[in-house]
Amino acid sequence: SINAARLLGRIRTLGSIGRDGEDRLVRLAASDTEKLGRDQFVAWLEGAGLAVAVDRMGNIFGIWRPEGLDDAAPLMLGSHIDTVIDAGIYDGCYGVLAGLEVIETLKAEGFRPSRPVVVAAFTNEEGVRYAPDMMGSLVYAGGLDVDAALASVGTDGTVLGDELARIGYAGDYEPGFLRPQAYLELHIEQGPALERESISIGAVENLQGISWQRVTIDGDANHAGTTPMSMRRDAGHAAARVVTFLRERAVAANTPTVATVGCMRFEPNAINVIPSRATFTVDLRDPDEGRLTQEEAALAAFLDVLAMEERFSVSVERLARFEPVTFDRGIVEHIEAAAGERGLSCKRMTSGAGHDAQMIARIAPAAMIFVPSAGGISHNPKEYTADDDLVAGANILLDVVRRLAAE
Amino acid sequence: SINAARLLGRIRTLGSIGRDGEDRLVRLAASDTEKLGRDQFVAWLEGAGLAVAVDRMGNIFGIWRPEGLDDAAPLMLGSHIDTVIDAGIYDGCYGVLAGLEVIETLKAEGFRPSRPVVVAAFTNEEGVRYAPDMMGSLVYAGGLDVDAALASVGTDGTVLGDELARIGYAGDYEPGFLRPQAYLELHIEQGPALERESISIGAVENLQGISWQRVTIDGDANHAGTTPMSMRRDAGHAAARVVTFLRERAVAANTPTVATVGCMRFEPNAINVIPSRATFTVDLRDPDEGRLTQEEAALAAFLDVLAMEERFSVSVERLARFEPVTFDRGIVEHIEAAAGERGLSCKRMTSGAGHDAQMIARIAPAAMIFVPSAGGISHNPKEYTADDDLVAGANILLDVVRRLAAE
Ligand SMILES: NC(=O)NCCC(=O)O
Ligand SMILES: NC(=O)NCCC(=O)O
Repeated sequence: SINAARLLGRIRTLGSIGRDGEDRLVRLAASDTEKLGRDQFVAWLEGAGLAVAVDRMGNIFGIWRPEGLDDAAPLMLGSHIDTVIDAGIYDGCYGVLAGLEVIETLKAEGFRPSRPVVVAAFTNEEGVRYAPDMMGSLVYAGGLDVDAALASVGTDGTVLGDELARIGYAGDYEPGFLRPQAYLELHIEQGPALERESISIGAVENLQGISWQRVTIDGDANHAGTTPMSMRRDAGHAAARVVTFLRERAVAANTPTVATVGCMRFEPNAINVIPSRATFTVDLRDPDEGRLTQEEAALAAFLDVLAMEERFSVSVERLARFEPVTFDRGIVEHIEAAAGERGLSCKRMTSGAGHDAQMIARIAPAAMIFVPSAGGISHNPKEYTADDDLVAGANILLDVVRRLAAE
Repeated sequence: SINAARLLGRIRTLGSIGRDGEDRLVRLAASDTEKLGRDQFVAWLEGAGLAVAVDRMGNIFGIWRPEGLDDAAPLMLGSHIDTVIDAGIYDGCYGVLAGLEVIETLKAEGFRPSRPVVVAAFTNEEGVRYAPDMMGSLVYAGGLDVDAALASVGTDGTVLGDELARIGYAGDYEPGFLRPQAYLELHIEQGPALERESISIGAVENLQGISWQRVTIDGDANHAGTTPMSMRRDAGHAAARVVTFLRERAVAANTPTVATVGCMRFEPNAINVIPSRATFTVDLRDPDEGRLTQEEAALAAFLDVLAMEERFSVSVERLARFEPVTFDRGIVEHIEAAAGERGLSCKRMTSGAGHDAQMIARIAPAAMIFVPSAGGISHNPKEYTADDDLVAGANILLDVVRRLAAE
């Protein structure tokens, strides 16, 4: 079994790196605070005797390649260490640090793998600063050109490539330089399903589709006191109608569809000026591709009606679009078997969040292991998973690596 | 009559001062750009041979006090030169520059007034950076303690008193040091009424009540992909419901009530995080005090329901509250008579916007003159009033000053 104290200690240490003045964890991709997290991770990789490689996307790899395995495709474990704004400490970090922990455990016990084992931390998984999310693994899997990705402009106007160079993580390796034989990702569930059924381990067999769009509505600025209600073209009100439309539609449908407006901006954003412009993001998800497409069409139709009714000009920019992904059945069965051997309850499930595994699944058999999230809370400092669950998940990762690296 | 070329030239000159990188006019109260506007105005006052006085609120006065009138209460003309974000060039500046123009015209023709004539530019009329609006004239009229006003914290975190000192406009005079015998304000209408009826001059007999509040709604941040619709406490959605509630209620009522949400902020404002907090402003106005109170109560009741239904925590901060004001009937009749003498169409009307006259009416008989706004557009760079209308309004101001200064 893994060294529980070492893993839990590292999770806490990494969780203390990148706090802002209000003690919020904000380690946005390629930022100064994320650099501190990267430096700590690299120090641990080096301390464990792994070779460290950084590719042009800033993806970091810790490589355990025992002698004689020079040509074998590696088994890859991974996740990310960037966070959202005011994040919890588990999302991403848990999987990365458990990957390192598994390698250290296997090394220490003299395990002789049939192939190299690599732990990866992918750049900009959260997608909060640069869109799309899972950008580092998407590029790694060949789904997006590396130069196009590096040219991405962030919510703060920065360019990803410049930021990676600035923090010293613009590496030389071409993304994809190690083609994994299989990919495994351990993660907190971030949703309520496992806790609700008191199950310890999720064997993630698929992952829902993700659609991200940025909508801009242009109306007319005018005076809040002198402009009769009938003469307004209030872009802020139009945006509010979209927010309530999306929510009410998703609630009424009684399907797994989820719809979220996370970012909102009014211009000129002055108390006595009717907003001339509203800009907001729409995050739509569904495990069913047909239904996801249908929800996107419903939004587009609503925006058309809005534009017509009140003569708004509406523009839509696509920030991310990923179809649902089905994971490798063989790996999912290994996870179930490993859980069974350890006497842990386990169920097959769908991931609501996007993950790097979803991208790497394009180039290698992949699957994920989930552990429960208390109250289903994530992307929130209250994110919490009990130590026993964290350790149990890492041991399942260890066991599955043993199984795959023995094949 | 006034010197039309000089007045129109100055309006354009002042309108060119305080442009940002995108050529937007942004001369927020006590900002660096507003300092430039103030400096230009003071230079014109000095060029016209007026005594310049600045009070502790940064209100600027150009004083024409012919010999022998040392003890007489002055006739005061005024408005403001601060602007909203991305403003037009007329709002406020027109009244200030026309006041100066009237004094210069009377001086040049050897008119001998019965009392001093003063032109005032009041600080922070717009209320965009610091609340409430009409702050300088409110303090001047004794409606708000000067030290409390100077301690106001702006939308950008600055303190008004510090900013006035920084730009060199923290004067020594106590606000109220000149108690006007009467106050007159010339302004663009900023609404559609005069243009719609092809009327040149508005004799403003009253001004509607203004209620400004800042609402903060707290829910729970959570993951946009993993959190079922039924488990969300989405503060952004709650804010959107308030926006649509206010709008639909005001439209349905078919009364003069207007309701505007001009500022909106989501936190953490990340694409895949359900907003934990939404903060927004509510601007409610009505010429009828009873109805305004009723609209405020309806909002409060809606917020209560919202808080209960979805267990939000809701807090409300009052930023401004002004009852409707009735102007001086005698001055309104002078305006009508002056318009009649010049053969200009004129109608009595209500002001939809707040104005410094509304505050000074607490300490002196006051009224306002309006001229048409093309398309009823204001607080927008497209704000426009035809030169002929601007000149006609300034001549009515001249005539009414002549009448009041002869009394
Ligand atoms: N795991 C996780 O929160 N990923 C962020 C991408 C997303 O699902 O929005
Ligand atoms: N005239 C004018 O636009 N004043 C600003 C105060 C208000 O919001 O009415």
